[in-house]
Amino acid sequence: MNLETILNKKDVLTVPGFSAKDPFNSSNITMTGNGYLGYRGTFPDWSADKYAGCTVTDTFDLADGKWKELCNVPNALFFLGELDGQALVIESENCSAFSHSLNYRYGVTSGSGRWKSDRGEDLEISWERYASYSDLHLIPQKINIKAHSDCSLHFKAGIDSHIWSLNGNHFSLAQYDQYSDKLVFQGKTTEKELPVIVAHRLIGPEGEILSGEDGLFRQISLDLKKGEETTIVMYMVVYSGNDVDDPLSAAIQSIDRAVSKGYNTLWDEHKKNWEHKWEQSFIAIEGDDLSQKLLQYNMYHNIISTPAHTDSHPIGARGLSCQAYQGSAFWDQEIYNLPMFLYTNPSVAKNILIYRYKTLAGAKRKAERLGFGGAFYAWISGDTGDELCPDYFFKDVITGRKIRNHFNDWQIHISPDISYTIIKYFEVTGDEDFIRDYGAEMLLEIALFLYSRVHHNLFKDRYEIHKVLGPDEYHENADNNTFTNTQAKFALEKTLEIVQRLKEKDPDVLSELQQKTGVNDKKLNQMKEIAGKMYIPEPDEKNGLIEQFDGYFQLEDIKPAELKARLIDEQEYWGWPNGIAYETQVTKQADVVQMFVLHDFPVDIMKANYLYYEARTQHRSSLSPGVHAIIAAQIGIEDQAYDYFKRSCSVDIVNSHPPTSGGTFIGGIHTAACGIAWQIAVSGFAGMKSGEGSLSFNPHLPEKWQTLTFSMKYRGCTLKIVIRDKTMKVECQNEPDQPFILKWRDQEKVLKEKGEISFG
Amino acid sequence: MNLETILNKKDVLTVPGFSAKDPFNSSNITMTGNGYLGYRGTFPDWSADKYAGCTVTDTFDLADGKWKELCNVPNALFFLGELDGQALVIESENCSAFSHSLNYRYGVTSGSGRWKSDRGEDLEISWERYASYSDLHLIPQKINIKAHSDCSLHFKAGIDSHIWSLNGNHFSLAQYDQYSDKLVFQGKTTEKELPVIVAHRLIGPEGEILSGEDGLFRQISLDLKKGEETTIVMYMVVYSGNDVDDPLSAAIQSIDRAVSKGYNTLWDEHKKNWEHKWEQSFIAIEGDDLSQKLLQYNMYHNIISTPAHTDSHPIGARGLSCQAYQGSAFWDQEIYNLPMFLYTNPSVAKNILIYRYKTLAGAKRKAERLGFGGAFYAWISGDTGDELCPDYFFKDVITGRKIRNHFNDWQIHISPDISYTIIKYFEVTGDEDFIRDYGAEMLLEIALFLYSRVHHNLFKDRYEIHKVLGPDEYHENADNNTFTNTQAKFALEKTLEIVQRLKEKDPDVLSELQQKTGVNDKKLNQMKEIAGKMYIPEPDEKNGLIEQFDGYFQLEDIKPAELKARLIDEQEYWGWPNGIAYETQVTKQADVVQMFVLHDFPVDIMKANYLYYEARTQHRSSLSPGVHAIIAAQIGIEDQAYDYFKRSCSVDIVNSHPPTSGGTFIGGIHTAACGIAWQIAVSGFAGMKSGEGSLSFNPHLPEKWQTLTFSMKYRGCTLKIVIRDKTMKVECQNEPDQPFILKWRDQEKVLKEKGEISFG
Repeated sequence: MNLETILNKKDVLTVPGFSAKDPFNSSNITMTGNGYLGYRGTFPDWSADKYAGCTVTDTFDLADGKWKELCNVPNALFFLGELDGQALVIESENCSAFSHSLNYRYGVTSGSGRWKSDRGEDLEISWERYASYSDLHLIPQKINIKAHSDCSLHFKAGIDSHIWSLNGNHFSLAQYDQYSDKLVFQGKTTEKELPVIVAHRLIGPEGEILSGEDGLFRQISLDLKKGEETTIVMYMVVYSGNDVDDPLSAAIQSIDRAVSKGYNTLWDEHKKNWEHKWEQSFIAIEGDDLSQKLLQYNMYHNIISTPAHTDSHPIGARGLSCQAYQGSAFWDQEIYNLPMFLYTNPSVAKNILIYRYKTLAGAKRKAERLGFGGAFYAWISGDTGDELCPDYFFKDVITGRKIRNHFNDWQIHISPDISYTIIKYFEVTGDEDFIRDYGAEMLLEIALFLYSRVHHNLFKDRYEIHKVLGPDEYHENADNNTFTNTQAKFALEKTLEIVQRLKEKDPDVLSELQQKTGVNDKKLNQMKEIAGKMYIPEPDEKNGLIEQFDGYFQLEDIKPAELKARLIDEQEYWGWPNGIAYETQVTKQADVVQMFVLHDFPVDIMKANYLYYEARTQHRSSLSPGVHAIIAAQIGIEDQAYDYFKRSCSVDIVNSHPPTSGGTFIGGIHTAACGIAWQIAVSGFAGMKSGEGSLSFNPHLPEKWQTLTFSMKYRGCTLKIVIRDKTMKVECQNEPDQPFILKWRDQEKVLKEKGEISFG
Repeated sequence: MNLETILNKKDVLTVPGFSAKDPFNSSNITMTGNGYLGYRGTFPDWSADKYAGCTVTDTFDLADGKWKELCNVPNALFFLGELDGQALVIESENCSAFSHSLNYRYGVTSGSGRWKSDRGEDLEISWERYASYSDLHLIPQKINIKAHSDCSLHFKAGIDSHIWSLNGNHFSLAQYDQYSDKLVFQGKTTEKELPVIVAHRLIGPEGEILSGEDGLFRQISLDLKKGEETTIVMYMVVYSGNDVDDPLSAAIQSIDRAVSKGYNTLWDEHKKNWEHKWEQSFIAIEGDDLSQKLLQYNMYHNIISTPAHTDSHPIGARGLSCQAYQGSAFWDQEIYNLPMFLYTNPSVAKNILIYRYKTLAGAKRKAERLGFGGAFYAWISGDTGDELCPDYFFKDVITGRKIRNHFNDWQIHISPDISYTIIKYFEVTGDEDFIRDYGAEMLLEIALFLYSRVHHNLFKDRYEIHKVLGPDEYHENADNNTFTNTQAKFALEKTLEIVQRLKEKDPDVLSELQQKTGVNDKKLNQMKEIAGKMYIPEPDEKNGLIEQFDGYFQLEDIKPAELKARLIDEQEYWGWPNGIAYETQVTKQADVVQMFVLHDFPVDIMKANYLYYEARTQHRSSLSPGVHAIIAAQIGIEDQAYDYFKRSCSVDIVNSHPPTSGGTFIGGIHTAACGIAWQIAVSGFAGMKSGEGSLSFNPHLPEKWQTLTFSMKYRGCTLKIVIRDKTMKVECQNEPDQPFILKWRDQEKVLKEKGEISFG
């Protein structure tokens, strides 16, 4: 698959090949969305069997007793034409041309088809739709019909009742009604009877109402003369009872407002909104168009996945591209999705972190249920923060027996990962209010969890963490996983620093928090001891290698390709408890390399470990290539970094990850890979690292990249940074709150005021 | 299979059915042995293909790079007759009668056959053999030939070179020579080049020497008249370089000595030896012959499995019945085999415990290798005490992939089990010398191991033990396994008591031991804290149930029979990591019930747990039924206890355990089940419990048992105990070292002097 072909136009992704051949993937990569809802890039006539889906935030529902997930709602933008009794679908033999694409600058899905009927009619239909950023509940869709001969067109348009749902029927009640000029679906969710409204309005010719099992439609006939063109506009609006008290009225008002503004005004508003987003996260690569396009495409998906409008919702691991992974957050949210926002639009990062604050109670329930203290965040976190990851995630495809994965109870790094991001947020923004109102309490609860989860090894007088699962999910049940221990130590140390700061600045707040969390001074002292004596495997004196966990180097040393030959069934799960990788050094993604992204290590140590682990990593996780790109760039293996950058940025475009694993559907947009694209450019190629009071750059640009220019925020300053092979220019666009240090390679300058600083 | 038929004669087991149909089992249950060697009860003409085997102690050898095991040596008692060109084997159509049996009072295997040749000859051959207890290296075999018509018999007799070996060829050098009237095998083992000698001498008619690939034989012809009888005697002698410096001379001398004494004298010596053994372990059941026979049969196997002659060898889990389980000791040795000796012939128990002392270095090496201190005894312990249990024990029979069992590194209870038996030995014998010279050092090293293996949970301020495997081997990776934690706490507490005793009586010895083991006073204090705060799951307040390990009660509650239906392949291993039992409450054997055998609990708690766990136990381990028999008896469910007693005692007779599991051969005599037979009678039905300074009885005899009479030793006294339904009589046959308390039900008397005490 040629990326240049797919991305041959500026800002546009053109579906490679015939869309209907792989309707899931083609509609995946062309989806539109706005953080409130995601609407797959399906043709207007596609239904549930072709993965049409509109996934809506904050509609978590458990319908099958196992998987709680967001609801897909009925598609109210359904449109199917007919000429001479023949359906105008692109699979039809009569279809002579079609197109299918996404404008990822403004989130517009569009497509077209041209059909010739047996009796000689020749008609072209093109359509476009976007999830609006000026009214998040609204999706306008415009359909253009052009007659290349005299045509007699019949079509039906309205609400399709066939809902693609992964795990059960989420609408125990589903009712379709006409409300004057609108068609309306009124549903109630299965578990909690949450009302969900989907409203439809068509602006165009009149027609008959057609009601039946397939949904509620208008049936319309149009006679067109050769050369005649006509336009139909459809509006779809979604509201749930979690958005407003009266979602039906809200939906109707939203439609009426849209109709009164009209398609063009709505479009202008939407476009302006996107322009502002792109300004905030401006990034430009001179000399390599493809990289620029890949980067922007991935940033687009990171943006539409993120419920930036609220501080109550998570970023789903598949965003709102479908129900896979339950619309819920993993550690990906903090470590993959947030950094781009943290440095370009920190209020979004703050919102997401407040979501973690609002789900603290769920994390505490989970910890208590498992016998621990404090906050053990859910591996899969939805609305309440309670664990959504079921005990049995995959199936053994050979025996058909279910597999007990311990993602939910052993992958404890999720908690210190959140601490890490809280601390990073504070370092970068200096937002004391956030720490006082939200951050400190989360940090203390997570520290309390760690305190209850570590154990003291008397014999070695050190603290250890056993029975965990690091990012490399093939090796469950590991002891002293270096990544996890390092994150835990960091979280404890930084929490104690925050405590010290509060003690000095806000002793009353601290004392209240100590009361609330039960982290008394004795426990703080014990946490200090734990942080000080936490066992962190050291790099080997001879070869610099850091062991991923106790005993990893004793495992069979085999490479992924060779190991793969042992598969009996292609679909086999490779990890715990008896997958082919479990007893070998082959990793799904490398823990140690991942650790380098988060913490500073000497370049020679990073290099030794990168080379060792890279050879043993299967990259089965879409999170993996991006991490390798960042570290390969940081250690100066630019060509490999560049390859991993492209690989990471095209995970969905080239459909490199199968949509099912061990019998579970996990397809959709890999938002973590999308999120990390910006980091690869900035943390990887520009070598940016931020600390408290300093911002450093150690660039290793790919050969093709003449300049890398980007905007970022640090400590209230908006910086425009231009990196060339041997120089760097930093333009500070406003007065900094306080001076900070700027580093470029070995040079160090203090940024005190608005203006430009040059290096090299 | 009818036990009454098999055991229809006093002291004799008669092979049920046709021996040649299941040559492995028939020769298993009829084996002879003497703790130095085991000789399977094969017909004299059976070879390696029919599991002929003579397994010899102290010949550990690693031939295949994986399994270190005892050697089987060539069979020097081979005899094959021929009439009219037809081999006289029992499978022959010409065989008109045969017999096959074991006298388990004196360890004599015997058999016979009668053949009629096509030309009308009619000949009967009967044979008997026993592993001598007066010369442990010697096996005499007598063959009687009786002609029922004129016969012309040809036979060959000598050393068969076909060795049944489980894992590789253990004789890289194998040479067969004639030494005057003897035939001699000289071998050198593959791994260590240990010389092994097998010598043969035939007393009977002369014949030609026949030498070839099959071994070294004499070919003899005999013309017999009708009614004529003749006897041939064969002697086999085995020596290795671990027994003496010059095993060849020793073997030749041994044979010559035997020849000069003659078969009858040898037999008298051997018989006297056995009479003494049976006197020491006298036990008689009035009213139930079958129980008496079963008990004696099992005690026989426990005796011949035990290398009582030395303090350097282990008791193999399959004794010397074959090479399965490598001729090596498991925890079975201390918990199943030793108690009978401890109470009837404590010097044997002492010898076996000294074997543990002599292998302390291996246990320390294992601990160090795995990152711990002190002594972590091998799960499978051979000559050096180094771990013999390979990482990969079984195979997944569905995929053919090997299974990593963690018997060797997670089944840590082996170490405190040894402490337990050391402490019991001391309680029962009062042997201060043993404690000073051997016991205390082992106890300290095991305590040090436990100290290094437990961890402090700061949150709950208690000590926990994670990632273990209790006796129920289906549930690896358990945290806070009640059995293990209880054994660990007991071991630590009792060790500290022993330390206190030494401090008062032998401070110099203590200080030397502290120096040697590194267990300084600070560590002793920490051990005290660990013992005091060790987490032991309490019985549930409502139902009295004790959880086997953290989370056990959350596992799927299914019964063994129902679970079995899920098997895809009969041969599947049920346990870790993905066997059908792992995620359920079905146990291989019950940990909690096992714990009751070792520690005192209230009857109502024992009963609640027995009933719960018994229903969920598969008894896949031959160790399981006996434990259930003991506890069922103690809680007064006598009929169930009786059934489990019979089941436990007939494990091998009815061949209830398949000889292979997960692709690994584990057949042979289940010596632990044999060992526990005596305990069922005495600890179970007689309800005997010993403490320091007291011996109590709480009998629950099976309905049929009118009296149970047995001899036992306690604190230097030989006691003869007669238990009836409502009375107990204790005859003390010598003056006690010091008075001790005797209890019977609620009555308590002090035994101060020789004489008789009655209860009831």
